[in-house]
Amino acid sequence: MTVRHDQETHRSQASAIFQAWGMPFENAEQTSRVLTWADLHGVESHGIAMIVEYNERRSNRPINFANVPFVVRETPVSALMDGDGGLGHVTATKAMELAVAKARGSGVGLVSVRNSGHFGALGYFTSMAAEANLVGIAATSVFGIRVPPTGGSQARFGTDPWSFAAPGADGKPFLLDMATTTVASGKVRNKIVEGQEMPHGWGFDPSGRPTTDPAQVMNGGFLSPLGGTADSGGHKGYGLAVMVNILASCLSGSTLITDPMHSRQPKGLDVGHFFMAFDPGLFREVSDFRTDVARLCDDLRATMPVNPSTPVKVAGDPEREHRIKREREGIPMGHGLFERLRRIAEESGAPWLLQATVDSDHGERKEAPTEMYS
Amino acid sequence: MTVRHDQETHRSQASAIFQAWGMPFENAEQTSRVLTWADLHGVESHGIAMIVEYNERRSNRPINFANVPFVVRETPVSALMDGDGGLGHVTATKAMELAVAKARGSGVGLVSVRNSGHFGALGYFTSMAAEANLVGIAATSVFGIRVPPTGGSQARFGTDPWSFAAPGADGKPFLLDMATTTVASGKVRNKIVEGQEMPHGWGFDPSGRPTTDPAQVMNGGFLSPLGGTADSGGHKGYGLAVMVNILASCLSGSTLITDPMHSRQPKGLDVGHFFMAFDPGLFREVSDFRTDVARLCDDLRATMPVNPSTPVKVAGDPEREHRIKREREGIPMGHGLFERLRRIAEESGAPWLLQATVDSDHGERKEAPTEMYS
Repeated sequence: MTVRHDQETHRSQASAIFQAWGMPFENAEQTSRVLTWADLHGVESHGIAMIVEYNERRSNRPINFANVPFVVRETPVSALMDGDGGLGHVTATKAMELAVAKARGSGVGLVSVRNSGHFGALGYFTSMAAEANLVGIAATSVFGIRVPPTGGSQARFGTDPWSFAAPGADGKPFLLDMATTTVASGKVRNKIVEGQEMPHGWGFDPSGRPTTDPAQVMNGGFLSPLGGTADSGGHKGYGLAVMVNILASCLSGSTLITDPMHSRQPKGLDVGHFFMAFDPGLFREVSDFRTDVARLCDDLRATMPVNPSTPVKVAGDPEREHRIKREREGIPMGHGLFERLRRIAEESGAPWLLQATVDSDHGERKEAPTEMYS
Repeated sequence: MTVRHDQETHRSQASAIFQAWGMPFENAEQTSRVLTWADLHGVESHGIAMIVEYNERRSNRPINFANVPFVVRETPVSALMDGDGGLGHVTATKAMELAVAKARGSGVGLVSVRNSGHFGALGYFTSMAAEANLVGIAATSVFGIRVPPTGGSQARFGTDPWSFAAPGADGKPFLLDMATTTVASGKVRNKIVEGQEMPHGWGFDPSGRPTTDPAQVMNGGFLSPLGGTADSGGHKGYGLAVMVNILASCLSGSTLITDPMHSRQPKGLDVGHFFMAFDPGLFREVSDFRTDVARLCDDLRATMPVNPSTPVKVAGDPEREHRIKREREGIPMGHGLFERLRRIAEESGAPWLLQATVDSDHGERKEAPTEMYS
């Protein structure tokens, strides 16, 4: 069973739970905005489902839900921010706002963040830059360590994601938001559920050798860096993961992902982020830049497809398709997640807002109940 | 047969040929420095062998060997340069020098380049930033179009490379220099020569479907973006290739790689590049940053290896190993390339400098002749 909720209800539920955890109203509103953006754009791995994980984390690690991010050092083109040991959504929003403001004033803004936490989908933040007619870059270190360096048999990295956005046609920025791993662990888990082998290159067994058995990956084995094994460019995904960690952790002075105390340390989260925005108007008319980005994207979409019924897409297209559909039909949520959130809300003393919205009789939607439960 | 030459002789030969083609002395010296750097660091695909390709290009396309790159627009943090229709080595050197100077003055420098040409290995330029205690980024559009977007059956991209460098331990920067394809076409060609199948994911047949037959790739088929097929992250390598083209071509106003006139147009080369340098001192003490980069790299090298005799490496390590060996033993060159360069020098009226250096009796080296011809 899947239930659907309009985005405002979906967001308000997340906000209510964060407020019950002690997060000030404004921060809870912004944190929930970031999560709902991910669900609205089909990035469910980084949406409201994260509340389940945050709930686990707060039970075994201090998280400052009343964090007040602050600027440590600043120049006209840069800032170092401290996330004050909280979740990262509010901090990352302020960091990209600062990068955007500096790009407007000086042409470019780089903001490094230390002592922060998980902040949802990177695309939310690089989109902020693209909407301001700027090029945006974001990268972050992560908690979970699942990926060995090429030729190694110990995990050293996580998904270590990278995002790049550029304004093109109106409302259609180029928006790349990618983990530097081949696939997410959820995809490996799905193969186990389906009783299928994985394609070659997705992961390694506990000795670090390539395997197509998903159980080997989940039981002591590893995910692969983008490219997979050494003979198919895995060292490139590994290199990109190091780049992300240099930008996110070494620049900001956050705990290194290779530090034995990473994510186990008593002091809190201490994840590092990197944000950048710059003005294409430094180089040519912004409208000319946007016209060329739009043309490049359109040329790619016009590529003859392998499968005539599956047109070629550009990064950002699948997310926009999800948004258009979900703005109309509501954001879907599986029954398992629905129940887990209900339990978390109950245990936290947060109001439960989601049930009412699945009532098809409240007159706010045109869809029949069969479409509301897909 | 492989001959070896000390790097100064190797470089002087390249310089002599460029001068015979009409390149002014200083420009020929710098262009040859960039090529020899690649050979010295084991990146033979971007070294003196490129002279064979440049020689072909100049026969069917105007190249301005007396190009004088110039700054079109400038701010304290940025510049747009025009490469004046020449090869890119001198232009790219000036562009990264400018990015470094701006990073020293303002903390960050972004330089976009239009109307340029092939410039050798990106790592040469990002290394310039790292040697100046800065973080460096470089990207460039390319000539050859060999790669389809994910799900497409027409080539739209080339190798579209990306480089990132950061200073760490003395003389050991982190140095990533990668094509955004899975492998270079040379590796596919080698599989044909060896009569072997390719690993899954290296390339596509002419209809855009995955194949393990290298002949299919070379006869109308395509190389794959990093990640390979759609189910193993190929859309990420595809996304990185678009990012590189936005930074290199859309920012500078160079001809788009998807333009039907790209690399066929009458006006010249018009390849675009992107360079960036920034000061980690914007965020914390540079020495602390470098200590953390060095620690991260050392932690990675200390990872338990899959194969005990093959330690884990960090991007930049293999190139340094080549350099140490080749500074001692000379730069190797296959007989085929040696003969082709000799013919080009003869046809161009350039002096031929390489032969004398393989004479083991000239007293400048300690190695026996058997080591000089490996």
